[in-house]
Amino acid sequence: MTKRIDFQTDPSKYRHWRISYDGDVATLTMDVDPSAGLFDGYELKLNSYDLGVDIELADAVQRLRFEHPEVKVVVLQSGKDRVFCAGANIRMLAGAAHAHKVNFCKFTNETRNTYEAAGADSGQYYICAIKGACAGGGYELALACDHIILADDGNSNVALPEVPLLAVLPGTGGLTRVTDKRKVRRDLADVFCAMEEGVRGKKALDWRLVDDAVPNSKFEETVATRAKEYAEKSPRPSDVKGIELTPLKRTFGDDGSVTYSTVEVEIDREKRVAHITINGPTDPAPADVAALHAEGAETWMLRAARELDDAILHLRLNELETGVLVFRTQGDPERVVAHERFLFDNRSDWLANEILTYWKRVLKRIDVTSRSLVALVEPGSCFSGVLAEILFAVDRSYMAEGDFEGDNRHVAAVTLTQSNFGPFPMANDLTRLQTRFLGEPEKVDAAAEREGEALEAFDANELGLVTFAFDDIDWEDEVRIFLEERASFSPDALTGMEANLRFPGPETMETRIFGRLTAWQNWIFQRPNAVGDDGALRRYGSGQRGAYDLRRV
Amino acid sequence: MTKRIDFQTDPSKYRHWRISYDGDVATLTMDVDPSAGLFDGYELKLNSYDLGVDIELADAVQRLRFEHPEVKVVVLQSGKDRVFCAGANIRMLAGAAHAHKVNFCKFTNETRNTYEAAGADSGQYYICAIKGACAGGGYELALACDHIILADDGNSNVALPEVPLLAVLPGTGGLTRVTDKRKVRRDLADVFCAMEEGVRGKKALDWRLVDDAVPNSKFEETVATRAKEYAEKSPRPSDVKGIELTPLKRTFGDDGSVTYSTVEVEIDREKRVAHITINGPTDPAPADVAALHAEGAETWMLRAARELDDAILHLRLNELETGVLVFRTQGDPERVVAHERFLFDNRSDWLANEILTYWKRVLKRIDVTSRSLVALVEPGSCFSGVLAEILFAVDRSYMAEGDFEGDNRHVAAVTLTQSNFGPFPMANDLTRLQTRFLGEPEKVDAAAEREGEALEAFDANELGLVTFAFDDIDWEDEVRIFLEERASFSPDALTGMEANLRFPGPETMETRIFGRLTAWQNWIFQRPNAVGDDGALRRYGSGQRGAYDLRRV
Repeated sequence: MTKRIDFQTDPSKYRHWRISYDGDVATLTMDVDPSAGLFDGYELKLNSYDLGVDIELADAVQRLRFEHPEVKVVVLQSGKDRVFCAGANIRMLAGAAHAHKVNFCKFTNETRNTYEAAGADSGQYYICAIKGACAGGGYELALACDHIILADDGNSNVALPEVPLLAVLPGTGGLTRVTDKRKVRRDLADVFCAMEEGVRGKKALDWRLVDDAVPNSKFEETVATRAKEYAEKSPRPSDVKGIELTPLKRTFGDDGSVTYSTVEVEIDREKRVAHITINGPTDPAPADVAALHAEGAETWMLRAARELDDAILHLRLNELETGVLVFRTQGDPERVVAHERFLFDNRSDWLANEILTYWKRVLKRIDVTSRSLVALVEPGSCFSGVLAEILFAVDRSYMAEGDFEGDNRHVAAVTLTQSNFGPFPMANDLTRLQTRFLGEPEKVDAAAEREGEALEAFDANELGLVTFAFDDIDWEDEVRIFLEERASFSPDALTGMEANLRFPGPETMETRIFGRLTAWQNWIFQRPNAVGDDGALRRYGSGQRGAYDLRRV
Repeated sequence: MTKRIDFQTDPSKYRHWRISYDGDVATLTMDVDPSAGLFDGYELKLNSYDLGVDIELADAVQRLRFEHPEVKVVVLQSGKDRVFCAGANIRMLAGAAHAHKVNFCKFTNETRNTYEAAGADSGQYYICAIKGACAGGGYELALACDHIILADDGNSNVALPEVPLLAVLPGTGGLTRVTDKRKVRRDLADVFCAMEEGVRGKKALDWRLVDDAVPNSKFEETVATRAKEYAEKSPRPSDVKGIELTPLKRTFGDDGSVTYSTVEVEIDREKRVAHITINGPTDPAPADVAALHAEGAETWMLRAARELDDAILHLRLNELETGVLVFRTQGDPERVVAHERFLFDNRSDWLANEILTYWKRVLKRIDVTSRSLVALVEPGSCFSGVLAEILFAVDRSYMAEGDFEGDNRHVAAVTLTQSNFGPFPMANDLTRLQTRFLGEPEKVDAAAEREGEALEAFDANELGLVTFAFDDIDWEDEVRIFLEERASFSPDALTGMEANLRFPGPETMETRIFGRLTAWQNWIFQRPNAVGDDGALRRYGSGQRGAYDLRRV
């Protein structure tokens, strides 16, 4: 799998999805092209999916938010006759490297979380209309929707057959949403997750697995009724026009570098470090809402978010040996503040709100990225507001103290704004500063008192906003030693350590999916019982069941 | 590792621990005998530990509760000169099978949780007095204490060097307690967990890693002062006399069976099933508190708890291929109720309280046991109160409906008591019934209204207390099919599935340790970077660092 995986697409290129629009209801139809897998070696039969299918879904979900603000309800359905979706493609999973499987599940989880949150964030609700078999990852697609309608036709069903059939877990939130969102009684959940054949009709309703089970004769009508009900509770305005998410300006260099309009990625392969620099805005903030809409995808806050998001995904999937992501910023700190303030001041505008909500997702994407994350606050940087939030997402931060010889850029400073005190919660539903100061909550207040000040290293360090501050003399050595040391550690141990240290405090369904379910799935994805030559994933379809090491762990 | 691991011991047999008593303060001294490892092939240098050391610790902690109720404070210290504890023995870990490592960590976690809860449960507090190096599992011993005192002598330190040194995680709660109990700032936690050399003196205090850092000249005095302070806040009575935890009556059969006085274990190796039968009390409940103390370890509630606890541990560590534990009870349901009611009615007596608190631990031990758990409610059974709680701990339950031909035992019934509505919370701090009915909390109330009734199958099923009810005609087939099917699934996938389904709802430090940290540690314990021939665990001590697959997952 050496070809570069590209997360950018648009509807003209979709092979697997169709969208149609009817007033405030959009219909998103999954109709996977079996021959259009992202890699060779498997066919995407029965609406099964691979990463390529999910990249299109993520794109569709994103465009629904920005290009179709008039949509209040999205109906998710299948374009195949007797199957809704058979889940993740087994042959793809059987052939994929461990890292690809894990990254695949992480991305699909992020996409599910995105449309699951679309109701609360933007008043766009998802209704899943299931006809035919809906198994494994197919049912996980449904579980992330706000409402599940199942045809009660003696044939359509929902199932999580991963454990009995494949010796892996439903790893895209399935187990967690069954217990925590649908609140299925735990022994019935045990029965459900241990059966290959799934559950149909009224039993699926009784067990809380679906919200409606209706005969075919009433199926369309029920879907329409539910769509109307959800549309009515949406606070979204109706007479709005979207903006176009134009293609990213992006150049890949031979050395692994990627250059966007606001983001630069350089890769030091020998040191296993990626350097990501976010450049602050050069133009002033939009003058008014009309100007924001006229700028559309070009406005700095949206452009930077899209580019950073793409860069992170690119590094995750295509640069597996890069162990450390170094975040830098360069630019005018006050201009960053002006751009984000404009959006906060105009949050009643749907587009301003969407851009801020998108930043929430991008920051969460950073939080769950399995690389060591470090921020360097250097002269000339602009870690203000939403960019300062990166300082609290990373594992640790280094801040340059005072003047640096021969460097005439402005002295490094951090500026806190309203961005750091509420609008960008982590998966644990706390702000990053609340998470940081779990043991000393009074320090959040102390930081809030300094909102708007350009805090130089001494102050930032005193307030606990950075991990270390070093002057010109020590800076280079300290940073170099850290990067070298980090690169020398076991990548696996770092992944496990970071996954545990980044999310202290309360848990949510989201932290449980990424923290607990993912960890167990990762473990199982390593075990010969699943992935060995005689394991269930490899043997699937051969007529032979997996041969298992029977020792319980 | 084919020798049977025995969890029964007593102070006369200890090789690694000493206890001394001085009024209401006990001193528990760790002085590991390097030559007395549980298995061959490693030496327990530098107060490092293996499962054998922890079995003694668990025994000491348990005896402190039952045999020394006068003790209000336990001071944990080292008997070695320059080292407190070097953590789990690396060569033992490097040589142990995956299942043993995982079970070892689970047991050590349970022991840490037990003494961590001793303050709240019984007014026995633990103070850790650290002189010398306190690393890895050594610091995890400390983290579970109520108070940590570190000698500020330029030498003593605390450290979690697992990631840099060994490419594994601090898996006995270390990462979770650093973030959630000590609430160390997450970037400082990152620095701390990535350093081999640990943190000393005042910095350890500033980073919240310890509660006191005092020079050697004031060390003893500080320990004495803190002990006095904790003793003063203990509600424990002073003029009480313990009971003796006499040796269990236990016989091992050649066929794998174990016979205790109240518990029988039969193993069907071919079917990979262990049948555990708990026999209810044959004698009436103690007449009064004096009678309870006179019965001591013989009283049914304590005897059954100790025997069941030992049986579970035996099966976990010594019968690795047993995939399903089947729980049955036999006896007089009302007599079970009478015995437990006596304890509840006399809970102000320390011994009555200890026995009930012990049941809480035994039930939690069942909850986190990585085997499929099923309860069969058959004619003649006594699933009442505390024993009914087992029905809500297992993954699913089957109940016999009505009369069974040729069986003259009483019809199967379930009796709920106060046991099922509060005193035995799960790790998630909910009762098992609250957890079961997370989606339908009104069903907890409906069940409470039937407290005290002998609920036969129809009613128990209607109330949602059992998974399935079958009559004489279907019973045998249904149970057989379930057991065969379960035994055919991948043990790993079942472990992951059950770990996710058993703990819906809120999270606590305890669920995070068993759910999230354990899963990541299990994953890492499989990875060649840790356990491969060139992995860090294998190479430790060779002067060579681990050779790592550098791909990030």
